[in-house]
Amino acid sequence: MDISAVQKEYESLKAKGLKLDMSRGKPSPEQLDLSLGMLTINAYKDETGADARNYSHLEGLPEAREFFAPLLGVTAAECIVGGNSSLELMYHCVNLQPKRGKWICPVPGYDRHFRVTEKLGYELISVPMTANGPDMNAVEKLAGDPDVQGIWCVPKYSNPDGYTYSDETVTRLASMKTANPDFRIFWDNAYSFHYLDPEKQDYLLNILDECRAAGNEDRPIIFGSTSKITFAGAGVAALGASANNIKAISDYLSAMTIGFDKINQLRHVRFFKAEGGVDSHMKKHAAILKPKFQIVLDIFESEFRDCPELAYWTTPRGGYFISLFLQPGNAKKVVQLCKDAGVTLTGAGAAYPYGIDPEDRHIRIAPSYPSITELNQAAKLLALSVKLVGSNN
Amino acid sequence: MDISAVQKEYESLKAKGLKLDMSRGKPSPEQLDLSLGMLTINAYKDETGADARNYSHLEGLPEAREFFAPLLGVTAAECIVGGNSSLELMYHCVNLQPKRGKWICPVPGYDRHFRVTEKLGYELISVPMTANGPDMNAVEKLAGDPDVQGIWCVPKYSNPDGYTYSDETVTRLASMKTANPDFRIFWDNAYSFHYLDPEKQDYLLNILDECRAAGNEDRPIIFGSTSKITFAGAGVAALGASANNIKAISDYLSAMTIGFDKINQLRHVRFFKAEGGVDSHMKKHAAILKPKFQIVLDIFESEFRDCPELAYWTTPRGGYFISLFLQPGNAKKVVQLCKDAGVTLTGAGAAYPYGIDPEDRHIRIAPSYPSITELNQAAKLLALSVKLVGSNN
Repeated sequence: MDISAVQKEYESLKAKGLKLDMSRGKPSPEQLDLSLGMLTINAYKDETGADARNYSHLEGLPEAREFFAPLLGVTAAECIVGGNSSLELMYHCVNLQPKRGKWICPVPGYDRHFRVTEKLGYELISVPMTANGPDMNAVEKLAGDPDVQGIWCVPKYSNPDGYTYSDETVTRLASMKTANPDFRIFWDNAYSFHYLDPEKQDYLLNILDECRAAGNEDRPIIFGSTSKITFAGAGVAALGASANNIKAISDYLSAMTIGFDKINQLRHVRFFKAEGGVDSHMKKHAAILKPKFQIVLDIFESEFRDCPELAYWTTPRGGYFISLFLQPGNAKKVVQLCKDAGVTLTGAGAAYPYGIDPEDRHIRIAPSYPSITELNQAAKLLALSVKLVGSNN
Repeated sequence: MDISAVQKEYESLKAKGLKLDMSRGKPSPEQLDLSLGMLTINAYKDETGADARNYSHLEGLPEAREFFAPLLGVTAAECIVGGNSSLELMYHCVNLQPKRGKWICPVPGYDRHFRVTEKLGYELISVPMTANGPDMNAVEKLAGDPDVQGIWCVPKYSNPDGYTYSDETVTRLASMKTANPDFRIFWDNAYSFHYLDPEKQDYLLNILDECRAAGNEDRPIIFGSTSKITFAGAGVAALGASANNIKAISDYLSAMTIGFDKINQLRHVRFFKAEGGVDSHMKKHAAILKPKFQIVLDIFESEFRDCPELAYWTTPRGGYFISLFLQPGNAKKVVQLCKDAGVTLTGAGAAYPYGIDPEDRHIRIAPSYPSITELNQAAKLLALSVKLVGSNN
């Protein structure tokens, strides 16, 4: 590796005055355009005759519950259709847990998950992610602690690695002994339908079915949303859980709202029905996203071919992110070098509890928002920055 | 009063098999139809260029903050535009208060307010409402208790009396000494624009201006929504407060959501702009509501003319409710008699903390939803029930 050539290339990219934000997993305008047809759907009565414009139906419009329930793998009675934010549903479901203690956080993971449990008074306990899901030996050991109240899971195309939990991981989560009888699995299936190639999809077991089979039907709460299917800021969120959980969650929600926006719920259902289902809509997203992931992976592969010790990365089959792992101690410096040249990445450490990556080696790449040209520049700049920092060690 | 004639009339109405629900303040379908034009507004970029479809703008879309702020009597920077539920904003704002202690509840008042503070661990302290607002001598005395954290206020066309706070009430609330330096006025101006006759409107002082003048700018949080302007279940809620409060509320909200539904915010703004403003839209609501209030008041007046000792009631110039006061001990029985004949009223006691009207004399009338014909039957049935119960005392 000729480090002066790397330095020169970095400076020349920096001189272009880039201004790219890859910090969050935002859909691109092109993806948002896929759902523009939804904005002119003016239905307000659902198939049961319920008026979506008025109060009532705290658990969601009946037609919307029927539609979203199978997408979560539950029945309509086990489904609550909410507002535009699944994070908000998760926040409420954490807040109604009986005990403030510890919460298991597979790492790297989703920063906003960790922040919810941190804000609500939990001590965050990291367990390592593997290509099959969280390290289950570590999880099972922690579940023996009665102070442990729950675990965050993004079980399919995980944030940020893009891993999908194996059948063994799911069944062990469902059947493990927990010292806390109210232990909860927060199953944020945010990327359930977000494959990059319809021919190469991952498969995930149904957590509620597995928990039920193991006699633990109250253990999981399943979350999903259309934030990355329709509109990131104006989608529909939903949750699925046992009858006991649905009752507890409804009771809790009933103190704070009379109901969620059912007009938007109905608009979504009718849009998807007209589109021939969620899956046919997701194929269009995949066609936009796949080349974006590919360009980043291609650049990493070609740039790090002669210095494989500097970095390795995940190769997701879906989701919104790629995890890039550097030599310990290098992530913050690389993020700073990128920033100096106009490319904002997710802050180093963001994917770890309290924002601290103990080894300072992980960077989350979010390829969805920039254009292919911008991604080309950004991934190249990132690789050059990794080399510059690596050469100074 | 010929009680056997009354009994006969009651039985004949009962025989009609009525099935009327007057339990909640729901807009009628005719009112909801006034905003149908909003459903085909497909704008998604606001005047600042912000994309309402994507993430970000936790405090609301810039164009929406500009639009809603003056309706609350604050600046755009002092305004957060939220989701479809102002109750939810209130819940969060109560939850972020530093102290769990006591909360002042003017009675009769709004049951969902009381439930929020009850659920969040406050002891509810009743103070009587008067035609000028809450009994300020009682409020000022309670404010001397450092455990008192706040007060619920529906300052204009109050729920359920329809009273508007006098200038003196507002200035006393703004300037009174509070032993708790973080004392908060929750100013739910839900019915700000909801006059029944544009020629006979009440006027309310600006609470933030008054508090600021008194050196207490962090004291009030102002809430409003379009739930009774556009769609009860799919409107837009907003709050206004000092810069300090806006910062604290934003910080709090940032843990639970990335942002509210900005598509619905923009749709509302553009709809009102096309309508020539909120006020011209409210005239249409008033035209529908005024005769509904009038029929109830007319029936009460004619039915109780010969027995004025049995009931008195408020005569609101706006809002969604009429308060009916009976002889002590009669409210529950009257609500039951109405129910037996097919008319569901708000449960007796609902307008009091813990659902208990200590004198069992108050009934909340919600005339908005039923048709004129139905109101005619329901108000008549109610009056007959009052007489039947009154005659048995």
